[in-house]
Amino acid sequence: MPYVNIKITKEGVTPEQKAQLIEGATKLLVDVLGKNPQTTVVVIDEVDTDNWGIGGETVTVRRKRGQ
Amino acid sequence: MPYVNIKITKEGVTPEQKAQLIEGATKLLVDVLGKNPQTTVVVIDEVDTDNWGIGGETVTVRRKRGQ
Amino acid sequence: MPYVNIKITKEGVTPEQKAQLIEGATKLLVDVLGKNPQTTVVVIDEVDTDNWGIGGETVTVRRKRGQ
Amino acid sequence: MPYVNIKITKEGVTPEQKAQLIEGATKLLVDVLGKNPQTTVVVIDEVDTDNWGIGGETVTVRRKRGQ
Amino acid sequence: MPYVNIKITKEGVTPEQKAQLIEGATKLLVDVLGKNPQTTVVVIDEVDTDNWGIGGETVTVRRKRGQ
Amino acid sequence: MPYVNIKITKEGVTPEQKAQLIEGATKLLVDVLGKNPQTTVVVIDEVDTDNWGIGGETVTVRRKRGQ
Repeated sequence: MPYVNIKITKEGVTPEQKAQLIEGATKLLVDVLGKNPQTTVVVIDEVDTDNWGIGGETVTVRRKRGQ
Repeated sequence: MPYVNIKITKEGVTPEQKAQLIEGATKLLVDVLGKNPQTTVVVIDEVDTDNWGIGGETVTVRRKRGQ
Repeated sequence: MPYVNIKITKEGVTPEQKAQLIEGATKLLVDVLGKNPQTTVVVIDEVDTDNWGIGGETVTVRRKRGQ
Repeated sequence: MPYVNIKITKEGVTPEQKAQLIEGATKLLVDVLGKNPQTTVVVIDEVDTDNWGIGGETVTVRRKRGQ
Repeated sequence: MPYVNIKITKEGVTPEQKAQLIEGATKLLVDVLGKNPQTTVVVIDEVDTDNWGIGGETVTVRRKRGQ
Repeated sequence: MPYVNIKITKEGVTPEQKAQLIEGATKLLVDVLGKNPQTTVVVIDEVDTDNWGIGGETVTVRRKRGQ
């Protein structure tokens, strides 16, 4: 029954990587808390680098500086 | 003043259906808790089937199996 | 498979009212989009009136004014 | 370490405005709570006007009426 | 920089289990996407069983039936 | 109509500081995007330090080390 939301920047994540995140997060809830995987929901939000900020600036700006 | 967030997979939901979800969720808060509909906010997030997981796998994979 | 999050102020909502919100939100997703109720998750967050703001002020302050 | 999520309707917000929102929200957390800006995350979600409801109707409908 | 939110029912999760969830979710983002663990944030929300619904009823009701 | 959610660790934030966060976040949306403050909602979530992780460990553990 757990719900996991993973927010990451939209930078070329492949369907295979998304499947790995979903499988891994579900397994984590099963292993640590004994949750039922059949009702464990994982939602991945991919966020444009213009819309994600850290350190007071957008990721777009940071990527241009090579960070 | 309530805030309702509805997350569903992005699979051809029409503007009419979205309007029904918004109307219905607002009415629910009015009916059950007597909330003011004018300040009740409903936000619908449509999530790509690659980005939604249940049972440890993506909805994309489940749909291919006919689930 | 939908996920619904309802955020309301923490002001004496009863378990019966919560059950009605959960039942109503689930029914809405079934009626409008034909979703499976068995995998529809509803989470209610009750937020202290000091922690909820509208119009630039806390609900605590508004309640004191009779709003 | 704070996390700030700003949800707005998708109506032509520019990268410059997004940068201002990120800078302003980060500064707010630094000024009020003394948080470290380097680990303050701000995520902006832009939501289609069909998917945002207030007063029981979509913003799309309200915009057509001039609201 | 990723942000992970894990929502679970409030049913006696220990600090050690929470630490394992945080460590595991962070490791998952590092392993699958090569993210920097130092800026990976994980937030666990524990939700009262009265406030969590699945199948149109609260978890409180389900637990009483032995589910 | 915007919705702002601020998540911070639960470490003695005062009602006055919360009021400042709400006032400041609302003003930011008015100043940058010309939003209507009367329908701008701000919700502050305070999270136990056991439930917040960064760098793969809980804030509780970091605080004990003086971080």
